Amino acid sequence: MQELTVVKIGGNVLDKEEALDAFLQDFAVLQGPKILVHGGGKLATELSAKLGIETNMVDGRRVTGEATIRIVTMVYAGFINKSVVAALQVKGCNAIGLSGADARLLPAVKRPVKEVDYGLVGDIHASEVNVALLRQLLHAGITPVIAPISCNAEGQLLNINADTVAKTIAAAFGTSYVTTLIYCFEKNGLLRNVADEQSVIAEIDVQSAEAMKTDGSINKGMVPKIDNAFDAIKNGVSAVYIGHANHILQMKNRTAGFGTCIKA
Amino acid sequence: MQELTVVKIGGNVLDKEEALDAFLQDFAVLQGPKILVHGGGKLATELSAKLGIETNMVDGRRVTGEATIRIVTMVYAGFINKSVVAALQVKGCNAIGLSGADARLLPAVKRPVKEVDYGLVGDIHASEVNVALLRQLLHAGITPVIAPISCNAEGQLLNINADTVAKTIAAAFGTSYVTTLIYCFEKNGLLRNVADEQSVIAEIDVQSAEAMKTDGSINKGMVPKIDNAFDAIKNGVSAVYIGHANHILQMKNRTAGFGTCIKA
Repeated sequence: MQELTVVKIGGNVLDKEEALDAFLQDFAVLQGPKILVHGGGKLATELSAKLGIETNMVDGRRVTGEATIRIVTMVYAGFINKSVVAALQVKGCNAIGLSGADARLLPAVKRPVKEVDYGLVGDIHASEVNVALLRQLLHAGITPVIAPISCNAEGQLLNINADTVAKTIAAAFGTSYVTTLIYCFEKNGLLRNVADEQSVIAEIDVQSAEAMKTDGSINKGMVPKIDNAFDAIKNGVSAVYIGHANHILQMKNRTAGFGTCIKA
Repeated sequence: MQELTVVKIGGNVLDKEEALDAFLQDFAVLQGPKILVHGGGKLATELSAKLGIETNMVDGRRVTGEATIRIVTMVYAGFINKSVVAALQVKGCNAIGLSGADARLLPAVKRPVKEVDYGLVGDIHASEVNVALLRQLLHAGITPVIAPISCNAEGQLLNINADTVAKTIAAAFGTSYVTTLIYCFEKNGLLRNVADEQSVIAEIDVQSAEAMKTDGSINKGMVPKIDNAFDAIKNGVSAVYIGHANHILQMKNRTAGFGTCIKA
């Protein structure tokens, strides 16, 4: 069966030129069909500040108004996406930058308002992911690089969560590919002791993760990431890792001692 | 032989919400395989002004420094490109937004410095256009929407001229397709008398165009547009029109009385 690797890279790495370059070098040489999903980073917040637009975050998620959706579309789908694509091209990886709006890649709906109105934030229709397009591109040796922006059926651009994008795409390939999903950030994995980079948890099951959420050792932005990781495993993704952006090749090859492996 | 229509839409239409919507409605229903190339418009200049970055134009072309290439990448390849894609989706046209950097669509070189240093401005390698990708997308019923941003072999993002992009793509399909190239703007065509919208020149050959450049009735931004139009005809494009953004369906169908037809 065909292999596929889906890698999610977040703001903490995107914001640091050298760290990003080292990560992209590893991603470029990663063997086999692969997809990169990227998040945002500080640039959108900085640009908003320069333009006098207030940034409002609730539980680590950006509340997105009319002015903010323009900014995140510019920054995520414009500058970050095309900079990453151009950098990958130089490293020999034939990347194509896409948003969820392109060719109906990730049809979305505006998130219904419950306790918090996140504004122009979208949830993806998981069953409507355009897997055919991704498969066609991968088959042609092209590597999709996906920005977390999409639109709904009315053409409203929406800000979508990049962790969820990565999970949803990996799951959409589900049983027809052996898929590895790697969430990378600036730590070596889930840590038993947040102050000790060597205390990486090698494997975690859902019971232990729930216990760590309860005692607060998994918190803030890590909560949706962990939930997405378990969701991916439940939905047919073969292997899910959380680890350092410098270790994607080791995680992809299941090398012991690198990253945290999510157990079904 | 397969037909193809390549349409270039410029800033004067992109900047006006209603005019843009009417144009996109016509473009969405235009029959057969088609490609849209868009320019920039005032948004990049406005954003630059808000951020305190000076806009420097020479002969209607933007001089592009480090700060400006970030802005035009954000605005052209981000906000404008994705807004147009989302609007076309709603109108039933399955659009995909791309820059010239994506999948090596339009490999470019930094323009050599002669009298003017335009900075991070690129010239396309016409022989290296990724026609295979465009053909694959068109064959899948997908409509490419192309932003005038590309990169060179060193991964430097470059600002490229949208009129030239449209011409180069149309010419790259050259003899394998019957290609119509339509440059649209806010006038009914090339005018004999610039004050009279009814004085449209139905057909123009290169001798008459040269005479009009000499006497100044073709000037400024129209000069490269006209040069690109004649270049397209010379390079195997079947028909080239310059006309109003409201008249693309008529020009595509060669209806008399709409637009200026470029004669070989």
